[in-house]
Amino acid sequence: MGQVTAGRVLERLAVRFREILGDAAVIDDPARLRTYECDGLTYHRAAPGLVVLPESAEHVAAVVRACVAEGVPYVARGSGTGLSGGALPRTDGVLIVTSRMRRILSIDLDDQRAVVEPGVINLDVTKAVRSDGYYYAPDPSSQQICSIGGNVAENSGGAHCLKYGFTANHVLACEVVTPDGEIITLDDGPGYDLLGAFVGAEGTLGITTKITVRLTRSPQAVQTLLAAFHSIEEAGEAVSAIIGAGVVPAAIEMMDALAIEAAESAVACGYPAGAEAVLIVELDGPEPEVAHQFEQVQALCGHAFEQRVAAGDAERALIWKGRKSAFAAVGRISPAYIVQDGVIPRTALPQVLARIDRLSKDSGVRVANVFHAGDGNLHPLVLFDDAEEGAGERAERVSGAIIDLCVEHGGSITGEHGVGVDKSRYMPRMFTDTDLDTMQMVRCAFDPPGLCNPGKIFPTPRLCGEVPRVRKADEPFHRPAPEAPAAEGDLY
Amino acid sequence: MGQVTAGRVLERLAVRFREILGDAAVIDDPARLRTYECDGLTYHRAAPGLVVLPESAEHVAAVVRACVAEGVPYVARGSGTGLSGGALPRTDGVLIVTSRMRRILSIDLDDQRAVVEPGVINLDVTKAVRSDGYYYAPDPSSQQICSIGGNVAENSGGAHCLKYGFTANHVLACEVVTPDGEIITLDDGPGYDLLGAFVGAEGTLGITTKITVRLTRSPQAVQTLLAAFHSIEEAGEAVSAIIGAGVVPAAIEMMDALAIEAAESAVACGYPAGAEAVLIVELDGPEPEVAHQFEQVQALCGHAFEQRVAAGDAERALIWKGRKSAFAAVGRISPAYIVQDGVIPRTALPQVLARIDRLSKDSGVRVANVFHAGDGNLHPLVLFDDAEEGAGERAERVSGAIIDLCVEHGGSITGEHGVGVDKSRYMPRMFTDTDLDTMQMVRCAFDPPGLCNPGKIFPTPRLCGEVPRVRKADEPFHRPAPEAPAAEGDLY
Repeated sequence: MGQVTAGRVLERLAVRFREILGDAAVIDDPARLRTYECDGLTYHRAAPGLVVLPESAEHVAAVVRACVAEGVPYVARGSGTGLSGGALPRTDGVLIVTSRMRRILSIDLDDQRAVVEPGVINLDVTKAVRSDGYYYAPDPSSQQICSIGGNVAENSGGAHCLKYGFTANHVLACEVVTPDGEIITLDDGPGYDLLGAFVGAEGTLGITTKITVRLTRSPQAVQTLLAAFHSIEEAGEAVSAIIGAGVVPAAIEMMDALAIEAAESAVACGYPAGAEAVLIVELDGPEPEVAHQFEQVQALCGHAFEQRVAAGDAERALIWKGRKSAFAAVGRISPAYIVQDGVIPRTALPQVLARIDRLSKDSGVRVANVFHAGDGNLHPLVLFDDAEEGAGERAERVSGAIIDLCVEHGGSITGEHGVGVDKSRYMPRMFTDTDLDTMQMVRCAFDPPGLCNPGKIFPTPRLCGEVPRVRKADEPFHRPAPEAPAAEGDLY
Repeated sequence: MGQVTAGRVLERLAVRFREILGDAAVIDDPARLRTYECDGLTYHRAAPGLVVLPESAEHVAAVVRACVAEGVPYVARGSGTGLSGGALPRTDGVLIVTSRMRRILSIDLDDQRAVVEPGVINLDVTKAVRSDGYYYAPDPSSQQICSIGGNVAENSGGAHCLKYGFTANHVLACEVVTPDGEIITLDDGPGYDLLGAFVGAEGTLGITTKITVRLTRSPQAVQTLLAAFHSIEEAGEAVSAIIGAGVVPAAIEMMDALAIEAAESAVACGYPAGAEAVLIVELDGPEPEVAHQFEQVQALCGHAFEQRVAAGDAERALIWKGRKSAFAAVGRISPAYIVQDGVIPRTALPQVLARIDRLSKDSGVRVANVFHAGDGNLHPLVLFDDAEEGAGERAERVSGAIIDLCVEHGGSITGEHGVGVDKSRYMPRMFTDTDLDTMQMVRCAFDPPGLCNPGKIFPTPRLCGEVPRVRKADEPFHRPAPEAPAAEGDLY
């Protein structure tokens, strides 16, 4: 579709949407459209052609049907805090923003569930039930602002997903507007578990309009330890020892010296001076269990040069403040950065950290490490100065090499941020063409014209009109072994 | 396809399969074929047209490709212990039995996982790692004989899934032969979570040939309580009180008087005489937690007229023996029975049990209740004498009415046994046509000719060649409220 034609179609849709949703729910002023041009990953930008602010599932379904009838792509957006460009708009399309769908529809404490609209802020679920002794477990660092609908799209995790699991483990049902504008309910009942496939599909299989979430009992006791180490290896060994002892902490987070420096400069969290690495280990559960296991954890962190135990909620909040602000804080020590989200088997932590360190030294590109150590989910922050010629490309190469390291060690290109537009190019490093094709068959089943959040996840979109894929009889049976990585020196 | 033609095609396939798999791996002798005519649900029977015993993924893929080329349906079977007819063969098709794929391929204790072939027996995984302090958590009552591949197909649960979850929570990856004979790997990495949709798809989306399972640390301590009550209401209230107190036992099982009678007559488990209901409550975890919570549980079972604490593994095994043998034991007190597998919100337990009791009294059909009380998964055993005219139909009506009760209370038609051939007719009681159609779109994406375990799950198979479904603009947005149940007296 030419740009002029696309513009006319969008104008026509704007008129239609004003009739259905009301004037105030449709945005087509270019200046206002620009405020939606990116999500939390700001180096992918595209202003939407049109923005709508629906207030109900019926609104969303009407918008989707109109888009499909006109052949116009559409993208859903919650609070826009995603870190993979999953909500990157289309300039020739419609952005469906759920910020007016913020009602908590019902709370059922007896059956430990709540029904919420997709625009509801993550932390607001917890706030609504905290005084009754419950909370909503998934806690991304952005939980004060991110939406439950966005969490569903990205299958968001958080510091405590080591013990409590990801969003998928806490969503019991979703009402979904499918890519042909029907409203269905997905739950974990009989038949196919399409709820599981929908959660984490990054908005490519439809738009959720109502979510039933599980409420978790607030633990009787919580204990938080901040342990400071002279080397990152010692911290890594402490993580292995804790997990190896059969303890399942609510969270084990690690930060290296550069990440600590950034956090200190931003929020003055007062971590022990001279630490090359800190661990935050949190235990929760029944009082006697926590007391017993906390003693074990402290013994297993015996190589720490300092251990601080949070004396109460205020001290615990201060310990977490450094960790949760780490990403944003990196802005204090570097003009620009790339954040990665690789996963490795926990047992590979020491080797991979050493390799990242060598990559950083060899290339002269600084890498700050902040991560969910307990489940091997790394968040290396690759720092660069975007005013310096070629610095972005160098950082990009280091970032890609880190992803290769993760895949090489049997890990994954993303732990909790999703693939989005940003990591689709890495998908072939993990999946064969056949694997990817199988996923796209499902996408085509839901969305034959391919209008629902196109351009995300898959490196090469499949045309759904194709005849069933050709079977390759001589195809390897297993995912190919990763190629030997290039000698690291070759990368620069 | 006429019967004669089907017979010729199967003969041709038998020749081909003997070439590929060897003579001993192909069964076409009618007497031997009959041994495969049903699974654990013996009132659906159909002898397969041909049986093959593959030894590798390549074998399975070759069989599937040949079936697809000839347009012949095929069904996979593990140990045949399923309770919904999910592995019911096709007389015009091929049964792929995985009993020769029984190797445990690797065990990785550091990363707490094992890779096994689909024919591996559930309990054999635990046996292989028990001395190292690990076990495989899902424990269906048939765990001494059922296969991991079958567990994957049915997303099997077990007594301990209250705390530890179902098979889906313990499977990290599956190698799968797709319905067009390709071999792919599904895991919970980036992209769509098709692993979640595959687990529990009852063999309709492909056949798993290699499974990576999670190994769980053996708990430090286990405590088991047998509590006997004078009424089933008191037992139900104890369950609510335990869960309400925030305790998450490894298992809470309930048996009523008729189930106890059956178990006593079969295995002499020696439960307290005069009990109208018994609860088995098991706690596991770190020693101090278990000790503390066990005191709580005993106090919350204060209305029990007798409480027995298992003094060790032998006594624990005896307590469990009665429960685990309950289904088979019912054969001692009734010539025939139907086992249901409905789910209700735990909070509805007392009302639903009272309604089942009334149904039983009004109809004169005996119902024995054995169930996973902690997660509201009922297993009513509807007893009848198949020699008595009309008794089967009466039992069937009571059984259907129980399912209606479950749906009416916001529950499900199956908790862990699957839909199979047996419960497909109940699917419309839970799902709208649009919901079912969405599931079938996915099936069509995987299996356009519909040859992979056809006739299971869906009440009315969709023809995959159809143009995309017609959107019904006036369709209700939500699952319709269940219709008011017929007055129970009307049923008989």
